Amino acid sequence: MLLNQPQPEAVMSAVDVAGRHSRVELFSDAVFAVAITLLVLDLRVPDVAGSLTAALADRWPAFAAFAISFVTVGCIWVNHSKVFASVQRVDTVLLFLNLALLMCVVLVPFGTSLMASYVTKADTQSHIAAAIFSAIMFLMGVVFNVLYRRATPAGATAAHRGSKKVSTLSFAVGPAANGLGIGLAFINPVAVLILFAGVAVYYLAQELIST
Amino acid sequence: MLLNQPQPEAVMSAVDVAGRHSRVELFSDAVFAVAITLLVLDLRVPDVAGSLTAALADRWPAFAAFAISFVTVGCIWVNHSKVFASVQRVDTVLLFLNLALLMCVVLVPFGTSLMASYVTKADTQSHIAAAIFSAIMFLMGVVFNVLYRRATPAGATAAHRGSKKVSTLSFAVGPAANGLGIGLAFINPVAVLILFAGVAVYYLAQELIST
Amino acid sequence: MLLNQPQPEAVMSAVDVAGRHSRVELFSDAVFAVAITLLVLDLRVPDVAGSLTAALADRWPAFAAFAISFVTVGCIWVNHSKVFASVQRVDTVLLFLNLALLMCVVLVPFGTSLMASYVTKADTQSHIAAAIFSAIMFLMGVVFNVLYRRATPAGATAAHRGSKKVSTLSFAVGPAANGLGIGLAFINPVAVLILFAGVAVYYLAQELIST
Amino acid sequence: MLLNQPQPEAVMSAVDVAGRHSRVELFSDAVFAVAITLLVLDLRVPDVAGSLTAALADRWPAFAAFAISFVTVGCIWVNHSKVFASVQRVDTVLLFLNLALLMCVVLVPFGTSLMASYVTKADTQSHIAAAIFSAIMFLMGVVFNVLYRRATPAGATAAHRGSKKVSTLSFAVGPAANGLGIGLAFINPVAVLILFAGVAVYYLAQELIST
Repeated sequence: MLLNQPQPEAVMSAVDVAGRHSRVELFSDAVFAVAITLLVLDLRVPDVAGSLTAALADRWPAFAAFAISFVTVGCIWVNHSKVFASVQRVDTVLLFLNLALLMCVVLVPFGTSLMASYVTKADTQSHIAAAIFSAIMFLMGVVFNVLYRRATPAGATAAHRGSKKVSTLSFAVGPAANGLGIGLAFINPVAVLILFAGVAVYYLAQELIST
Repeated sequence: MLLNQPQPEAVMSAVDVAGRHSRVELFSDAVFAVAITLLVLDLRVPDVAGSLTAALADRWPAFAAFAISFVTVGCIWVNHSKVFASVQRVDTVLLFLNLALLMCVVLVPFGTSLMASYVTKADTQSHIAAAIFSAIMFLMGVVFNVLYRRATPAGATAAHRGSKKVSTLSFAVGPAANGLGIGLAFINPVAVLILFAGVAVYYLAQELIST
Repeated sequence: MLLNQPQPEAVMSAVDVAGRHSRVELFSDAVFAVAITLLVLDLRVPDVAGSLTAALADRWPAFAAFAISFVTVGCIWVNHSKVFASVQRVDTVLLFLNLALLMCVVLVPFGTSLMASYVTKADTQSHIAAAIFSAIMFLMGVVFNVLYRRATPAGATAAHRGSKKVSTLSFAVGPAANGLGIGLAFINPVAVLILFAGVAVYYLAQELIST
Repeated sequence: MLLNQPQPEAVMSAVDVAGRHSRVELFSDAVFAVAITLLVLDLRVPDVAGSLTAALADRWPAFAAFAISFVTVGCIWVNHSKVFASVQRVDTVLLFLNLALLMCVVLVPFGTSLMASYVTKADTQSHIAAAIFSAIMFLMGVVFNVLYRRATPAGATAAHRGSKKVSTLSFAVGPAANGLGIGLAFINPVAVLILFAGVAVYYLAQELIST
């Protein structure tokens, strides 16, 4: 069914040579795009007999979860494109790390849907939903960090030591907040949404300031 | 979870150099494509016992909303591709303005679905549905305008002052009509569909004439 | 909401220059891909209490319609990529003809779903479903023909007069068969599936022979 | 509806010239991406009254099938990108072999959904579901092998005879395991999941070792 990649050139030719994007980028962009757009399916309103406004207001967790997931995946995509823009050589390990990241991205609509449906439900249900949502976000952050360290050559890292220090701080904040989210899920699931909204705003602000 | 973009070159490398498309364009194209195709999910016909023709005729708002949304998002895509074709440098602000635009695009299937389901229902329901549909279209127009002004360098603008005057008029018509739609939603929701169909036809005609 | 395209260069820059694909191709590829993949959603099996084999066998129209639509849209995509590979200049008229084609492509999952659900139902229902399915295919064929004539420069056509004669024959067969399908729908809806399967096989064979 | 491709140059221009990706690659990437992302729709949790943890635990086949299908399609994509990176000329036969492969890829979410819903149901149902899932995987492997042999020029094959021997072994393992799956489906459907998970892990390991 599958085949070995026998020669190093085959791997090299998957790389961004002569100004073209590698297929990893094309494929990743498409997965990010589909996942981010599937988020909208959760906003679908079932047939409502009474007030539509009330029905939509009742579904506020769906809208909050949609916005948070969209911005978070959007930020991951922005950083993904930055990392791959500086990648010189895409090897098989990086390909599979990227697949692992995409698997997390694809799971985001599932976590978001769970959050949207259960965060205002009975205690045990909302705890589990928020914990799974946080865990997917946490995993996505961890995998992205591993991918980033693998993709960035040591030389490039050394060249930007100053900015690297800021990056390291950012790296710490993301997974830390997401890890905190898993714990917070068992205390107050709605607070998880607020925490993640805060993280998203923090990153948006940081990206814009660092420009 | 995320990382800073430390060096300006990283941003530069996301730009259209040597004739390649930036990943912003690849990603945006994919989001536009998925959102525009998801519109078809609303046309799905539920199991009908009696006449299929009558059932489909009853669902005319779904077909009208599908056509209007498809043409509107299609026009936005055409203009998006024109704007980015002339962009020299994609900075982080532009990246996030683009994400904001894509968030509006992704919301279009939700607004269209709402319109399709409720425009012929009870008064209060149809008013809210039409107002939300108009608001999403309005927001998309506003964000596109902001993105266009940010993306177009001052020099290029000065060079095309004559055509710019026409553009400014177009700019005024779009959001004005959409803003009007929000108000009209509370008077006659079906008229919102007619208004938006008119706007779509107006832009199609204008694009073709200006060629 | 939208803007005029003021300068001809803006249109030129959307064209395939220096070996890069125009964004029309990127966007079209994504729409084709999403539409062709959404076809699979119709194969989804509802909860079945009894024999799964019998339930799947009962749903044979869904599988037949899936295969026919997949091959037909696949053939359109192959020809779309050939046409745009020879296009020198993408103007606004071609952009909107392409959008019209994509609208037909996006409607294919709807027509397929209708066909799959109703072709074995009561007479009037199956007639309407088959007629709509045929009409979408017919419209797609007609729009593709218009797009092809617009996209192919007169000079190129003159250069290939011999092969052109074959093309013209092909052109006649496609829409003619699809038009026939609309009529046939009111006599025997299952025959429409057989007719379209035949057309798909005919084109596959012709493509492979002409290589 | 369709047209002949009259001149060989038209086919040539669909090829990767001057470092650009062929449209076959763009289109295939998008189909792979949509299919791999649609897999998440099966994880959707229906409204649950009692324990969410129990409901999710009950749905373990959905998660197992999701992971197996994601990794398998991901591996096929990695190998697809390697094959096309070395392709010199995309002819019509290769285009249609690729469409056949994509048809299998598009069927994977259907097979996965069937597996997820029925593997823990009554005997006859689970046997059929597992057999169809295995058959789709088997077909995908066979079509990929045919495409690989067609795409790889004889010269290139001769040049890598050593590595080719390993490839041939890999080729044998994939379809053999999948064919075994079809038989195993009628004995123990859950064992099919374990077998396919093993194959996925085997290929992941092999890819990483061969780097």
